[in-house]
Amino acid sequence: MKVVEWRREFHRYPEIGFTEFFTASKVIETLRSLGFSVLYGQDAMDGAARFGVPAKEILEKAYHQAMKRGANPALLESMKGGYTAVVGILQGKESGPTLAYRFELDALPIEESQSTDHLPHRFEFRSRLKGQMHACGHDAHLAIGLGVAEKIADRNFAGTIKLIFQPAEEGVRGARSMIEKGIVDDVDLIICQHIGMGVPTGQIQGGVEGFLATTKLEVTFLGEPAHAGAAPEKGKNALLGATTAFFNIQSLGQHSGGKARINVGVLEGGTAANIIPATARMVIETRADQQEVNQELVERVYQIIASSAMMHRLEYSIEIIGEATTFQCDEELVSLVLEEAEHIEGFTSLQKSSVTAEGSEDASLLIRRVQERGGYGTYCIIGSDLAAPHHHAHFDIHEEVLPHAVQLLERIARRDWEIAHF
Amino acid sequence: MKVVEWRREFHRYPEIGFTEFFTASKVIETLRSLGFSVLYGQDAMDGAARFGVPAKEILEKAYHQAMKRGANPALLESMKGGYTAVVGILQGKESGPTLAYRFELDALPIEESQSTDHLPHRFEFRSRLKGQMHACGHDAHLAIGLGVAEKIADRNFAGTIKLIFQPAEEGVRGARSMIEKGIVDDVDLIICQHIGMGVPTGQIQGGVEGFLATTKLEVTFLGEPAHAGAAPEKGKNALLGATTAFFNIQSLGQHSGGKARINVGVLEGGTAANIIPATARMVIETRADQQEVNQELVERVYQIIASSAMMHRLEYSIEIIGEATTFQCDEELVSLVLEEAEHIEGFTSLQKSSVTAEGSEDASLLIRRVQERGGYGTYCIIGSDLAAPHHHAHFDIHEEVLPHAVQLLERIARRDWEIAHF
Amino acid sequence: MKVVEWRREFHRYPEIGFTEFFTASKVIETLRSLGFSVLYGQDAMDGAARFGVPAKEILEKAYHQAMKRGANPALLESMKGGYTAVVGILQGKESGPTLAYRFELDALPIEESQSTDHLPHRFEFRSRLKGQMHACGHDAHLAIGLGVAEKIADRNFAGTIKLIFQPAEEGVRGARSMIEKGIVDDVDLIICQHIGMGVPTGQIQGGVEGFLATTKLEVTFLGEPAHAGAAPEKGKNALLGATTAFFNIQSLGQHSGGKARINVGVLEGGTAANIIPATARMVIETRADQQEVNQELVERVYQIIASSAMMHRLEYSIEIIGEATTFQCDEELVSLVLEEAEHIEGFTSLQKSSVTAEGSEDASLLIRRVQERGGYGTYCIIGSDLAAPHHHAHFDIHEEVLPHAVQLLERIARRDWEIAHF
Amino acid sequence: MKVVEWRREFHRYPEIGFTEFFTASKVIETLRSLGFSVLYGQDAMDGAARFGVPAKEILEKAYHQAMKRGANPALLESMKGGYTAVVGILQGKESGPTLAYRFELDALPIEESQSTDHLPHRFEFRSRLKGQMHACGHDAHLAIGLGVAEKIADRNFAGTIKLIFQPAEEGVRGARSMIEKGIVDDVDLIICQHIGMGVPTGQIQGGVEGFLATTKLEVTFLGEPAHAGAAPEKGKNALLGATTAFFNIQSLGQHSGGKARINVGVLEGGTAANIIPATARMVIETRADQQEVNQELVERVYQIIASSAMMHRLEYSIEIIGEATTFQCDEELVSLVLEEAEHIEGFTSLQKSSVTAEGSEDASLLIRRVQERGGYGTYCIIGSDLAAPHHHAHFDIHEEVLPHAVQLLERIARRDWEIAHF
Repeated sequence: MKVVEWRREFHRYPEIGFTEFFTASKVIETLRSLGFSVLYGQDAMDGAARFGVPAKEILEKAYHQAMKRGANPALLESMKGGYTAVVGILQGKESGPTLAYRFELDALPIEESQSTDHLPHRFEFRSRLKGQMHACGHDAHLAIGLGVAEKIADRNFAGTIKLIFQPAEEGVRGARSMIEKGIVDDVDLIICQHIGMGVPTGQIQGGVEGFLATTKLEVTFLGEPAHAGAAPEKGKNALLGATTAFFNIQSLGQHSGGKARINVGVLEGGTAANIIPATARMVIETRADQQEVNQELVERVYQIIASSAMMHRLEYSIEIIGEATTFQCDEELVSLVLEEAEHIEGFTSLQKSSVTAEGSEDASLLIRRVQERGGYGTYCIIGSDLAAPHHHAHFDIHEEVLPHAVQLLERIARRDWEIAHF
Repeated sequence: MKVVEWRREFHRYPEIGFTEFFTASKVIETLRSLGFSVLYGQDAMDGAARFGVPAKEILEKAYHQAMKRGANPALLESMKGGYTAVVGILQGKESGPTLAYRFELDALPIEESQSTDHLPHRFEFRSRLKGQMHACGHDAHLAIGLGVAEKIADRNFAGTIKLIFQPAEEGVRGARSMIEKGIVDDVDLIICQHIGMGVPTGQIQGGVEGFLATTKLEVTFLGEPAHAGAAPEKGKNALLGATTAFFNIQSLGQHSGGKARINVGVLEGGTAANIIPATARMVIETRADQQEVNQELVERVYQIIASSAMMHRLEYSIEIIGEATTFQCDEELVSLVLEEAEHIEGFTSLQKSSVTAEGSEDASLLIRRVQERGGYGTYCIIGSDLAAPHHHAHFDIHEEVLPHAVQLLERIARRDWEIAHF
Repeated sequence: MKVVEWRREFHRYPEIGFTEFFTASKVIETLRSLGFSVLYGQDAMDGAARFGVPAKEILEKAYHQAMKRGANPALLESMKGGYTAVVGILQGKESGPTLAYRFELDALPIEESQSTDHLPHRFEFRSRLKGQMHACGHDAHLAIGLGVAEKIADRNFAGTIKLIFQPAEEGVRGARSMIEKGIVDDVDLIICQHIGMGVPTGQIQGGVEGFLATTKLEVTFLGEPAHAGAAPEKGKNALLGATTAFFNIQSLGQHSGGKARINVGVLEGGTAANIIPATARMVIETRADQQEVNQELVERVYQIIASSAMMHRLEYSIEIIGEATTFQCDEELVSLVLEEAEHIEGFTSLQKSSVTAEGSEDASLLIRRVQERGGYGTYCIIGSDLAAPHHHAHFDIHEEVLPHAVQLLERIARRDWEIAHF
Repeated sequence: MKVVEWRREFHRYPEIGFTEFFTASKVIETLRSLGFSVLYGQDAMDGAARFGVPAKEILEKAYHQAMKRGANPALLESMKGGYTAVVGILQGKESGPTLAYRFELDALPIEESQSTDHLPHRFEFRSRLKGQMHACGHDAHLAIGLGVAEKIADRNFAGTIKLIFQPAEEGVRGARSMIEKGIVDDVDLIICQHIGMGVPTGQIQGGVEGFLATTKLEVTFLGEPAHAGAAPEKGKNALLGATTAFFNIQSLGQHSGGKARINVGVLEGGTAANIIPATARMVIETRADQQEVNQELVERVYQIIASSAMMHRLEYSIEIIGEATTFQCDEELVSLVLEEAEHIEGFTSLQKSSVTAEGSEDASLLIRRVQERGGYGTYCIIGSDLAAPHHHAHFDIHEEVLPHAVQLLERIARRDWEIAHF
């Protein structure tokens, strides 16, 4: 089956957020060959609205790797600097609503298992890129996306289909840049989906609950070095600032407004035993099941950072490197998904939202935008037993669910829309 | 000997800083009876320049105790509110310089030993006041002061003698208030002295080195309480501010400019297990063997407090509750002291400054002021073996050194001044 | 109405936990006069199972005040040392189950308002005890308890009635001591109740949800003092230990197992600016909506305290000073309460459990014990508009609800039990 | 002059501690060509006694660079793995004491200036190695060492000369490994020297005071990762351990036993915003002007680390990565150096020890070992005006002092020893 081949091809070449040069060029070419109009590069995203773009040398290295692997140079040129979003647009033969499906392009910085138990290794489609791996299932999503594209290339549907291929979902960094470009502003219905997530093979879940609002922040402190033996008081100790912030941030995680989470995921500073540390860096995330609570946490973090810097006479900067929000799936769309799923043999169990998500997703931003403009959205889960949890070196899906997922999205696309219903 | 009787009487009734109502009235009456002009109450000190004045109820309790013990009500009235400084002034029969001696009035909040080994207990002059004790030797200083007064009451000396009886030396709180009143502005020569300090009986040390500059600070934080279970985020946690300040202040004690010391001596806040703590209080001291380094530490403390308050949205206040500085004894005066000491049988060993002080003294402020206005000063040590260290419940001196000390100060007072020499 | 008079009398004389000497003696005498058998003193509670008993001098002061106010000396003698629990037992004329009602004896350390708006002040039943106040409604509960006693003194009911008057509910300190004495071991049905709690006048709530498991801990650290200027390194700084524990405890409040709360409500240590602090004390509470999560938090606190002490070579102690747990009201009993309430005119709105408690209650321990032994329990809320929130200086209830509450408990007591049902 | 050429050649190729492969092979070859017996590789040092050996890949990269630059492969082979110490031994024609001179082989990880003001750049002997530079003057020392070797190659001296070329002085890492091999066990007199150090061109200082005892420590913490949103309590947070240690270590820097210094130079941990940090690393140094005080600080650090790990259930390791001690120059040797310096025109000012060192030196270990076995040692300073302070990207010496330094060491070597004198 082509969808399985596609999945394995994407699996072999896992590119991390904003460096999906080869992956995106492959998607562009396929969509074009099927008759889609394709937006990409700066036509598909607003560069300034990206969060957490990797350093220049990382972008360049990935660019040259993609070139070497045979990506189309003209396409690459348009993506230079991390412009890897792709949107495929196709008009149906009849008029109808604009329906968007969203798929993610990026992989994770995880070294893939070489265990003989690990099917991608045994069947020889293990990652060719050291320290990178499709360990969340985005390779499967991409394959489903191309699978649907192929099916509906006949234009036997009503309305417009938009296939959104988003970069940098990991770290919730990429969605904003596509929204700011207006990609979903004309969308009436948006359906995002994820494979796995604790839902077993054969089950489909029409919606989801519990995604947390989140903000990811990168903080730097800049002080002054000094010889720790000869003149310690001459230094401005950036680690004192960072550790002071660390402890005070740790105390924020209790809130009567529901679940609140805070983590200092990275703290690092200093250069040598005998130098008062002059630089420090922190990576922080806040989360909450209420958008307002998350915002409150972010404000408290800002104040703690500013005060810690002032305390030790440090310069500082804070950059938002990722952001997602909470959202609610529209009941009507959840029902519609399940209604279509009922016709597909592979789905033996239909659920509204039996599983609560524990993490965050920037699909939230896409869905909220569509809803704010009067449209409808949902986030459904395609069940698949997993060899290991998401983000694990042994992660693997059941490939037999891929055709069912394609079928589902195809059925929805071909639906005879009673627009009034929405 | 009267000087011993005086010492024991003062020892029996030890009053702490700014509450020396009975002690001061006894001093005033004795000086007056000897023909001295006496300044006291608001004539001897600037109330606003006092540091660390006790709370009203403590002042009032001590006032009433002094009243009950039979202190002169008219004198007491003048001292109400903690105006306990006394200055005795006597003109000699001939003209000459103004020579000041300084003695301290205050005792310590220490419960005196009831051991049978402890002579004040055995000889029945132990403290009559619960939890208070002359454990530093100020009782001896006071007796020496009155002893000298009695000797020179004949006016057979050249110039003016000023006997300065300062309140609240403990905590370095009282000297500033007498300086601001101008008490030493006309002084040409000032001699302060201390008994004990590690110098053995029979030895006299004409000067001293090593007193540290110091500042004592009281800090309060004010936040907002909240129910810790129901709405923790509604509180503004004053203990978070105080402990953040605590840790950062602890990191200040290293300086290439010499000895630097910092201590948070008291930290307290909060009321109950289930309330987010809304108040906190800290008592902090800085010390350094350079006045500038001490000042730098104080500035860093201010910045840390302000930043800690800002971090947790607290109000705060900082009050200086004590202050002393470094100083240098004038060589000429050191020599003069030793020159006179040579004539006194009781002093068998004469030293310039063999011992290094480890603490702080607000005599430093008096001596510096005299020196700044062109005068001379020294701080000499009257050796005495001690039964236990200063500030200890078993502290006791050798009373036989008291008459020698009186003799010394008398000889200096009667000196035929070659003013030009100074 | 007598119930209102009783409430006002109790309101006038608010005694805090384990010092309810006058209150308890009043309750004992009233119950006796109505024909109840009464257990009190060490017959009603296990002294060793009390949490957070006040210091000796506080117990003694309250004892003498109660004596002075005219409490029965023989009864007082039995309560000496804080044995203030009371249990009234009455056999009905017919056989039936043992039904317990629980009321709390203790007040709060809050100074009552003297505003003319404050009815207890205007109507002259304001607290006669400085700094103490019935600000939670326990005075009302006591009045209801005596009101019921009076009604059922005719013994026209089936089974046994136990009226449990518990000391020291504030701080969740008293229930355990009555449980350990076996007071509820023969109880088939237990009904606890609380006035107010956000439920309006006229409403009755048959059960409640959401009380949190909690543990209150008192921690002391003992180090060694040293002169902060002369030999700072000789000290063992107890405040360093306590603040280290403080910051690390603050980081515990995030748990995937539901609501988790942690608070350091009190931290205090040190004596003077120039002494390395040698002692420190902390009061800490943990809470969680799962008993297991609360237990996990307590264990983490123990480990943090032990490690902080080891870090600074301190001795330490940890004492549990309060404890409560989670519980579930039995559906059958909730229904029964509402069934009877329906017959009372004053109750215009009946609810199962519309309000979620935000705090903790040691009624939880009583109810759990009854349930563990095969009985049933509930905790109902008697609605009353409040002048100000619980634990506030302006707190006041609507006295008109008191007779309705008495009626309700009377009706339940007189019920014709179908034992089998339970 | 050859000594200047040598200095420039060494300057061009600055290798950091334990990677001085090219430098050492050059030294070995030169010494051999002059007739010295040469110990090197594992004959000159005990591998297990090295501190802070770089990671394998750093050693290998430097090794291959040295190979590429033309170092003798046989010599390189002996040095593989960081065995870069060299000792040249020469017997004089007459019998006499064993005299050792010590020189350092290593450079610093500093990028050298490309300013046109910077003479090494202008005269084209700037570093060829990116990010490495002889910024402390060890290139000059090496040149002096070879210069002396050349002069005394005629053997016209009494006794034995040992030229000790020590690796890894920076970080005080290399001396111990030569001591443990016994290199100085037969030495009667050891003279170490340093150029610059605040002493102006033309001055020579026969001894030095004030080098601090120091210990450098590397600490790692190992906890367990967890998803920060989904199950924060499942993690064991290594950064909590490290920051707790950080703050408590910062509080150690006050000691009545003299100068005490402590610095956490590096703290780093964690991997990503959404993961509870499972690893952390710290680099710490202690210093004191008393060996015992330094040892006390080290013990306190160990206890703080152990307690911080226990607090958060972490595994940890502590490794000593550098060590030096205090020492006293022998008066006799100081005088002897100055006696010889008097004969050298270039030295216009002779001092005993006018400058106080502010740092630490592992020459201290060599000198102490010689003294412990009955020998004598000193550390003299060869004055040189500097273009910028030591360890600065603009650091440069006055090359004209090199021949004077060679002359001095030559004169001392050729001295007619009156052994009895020592």
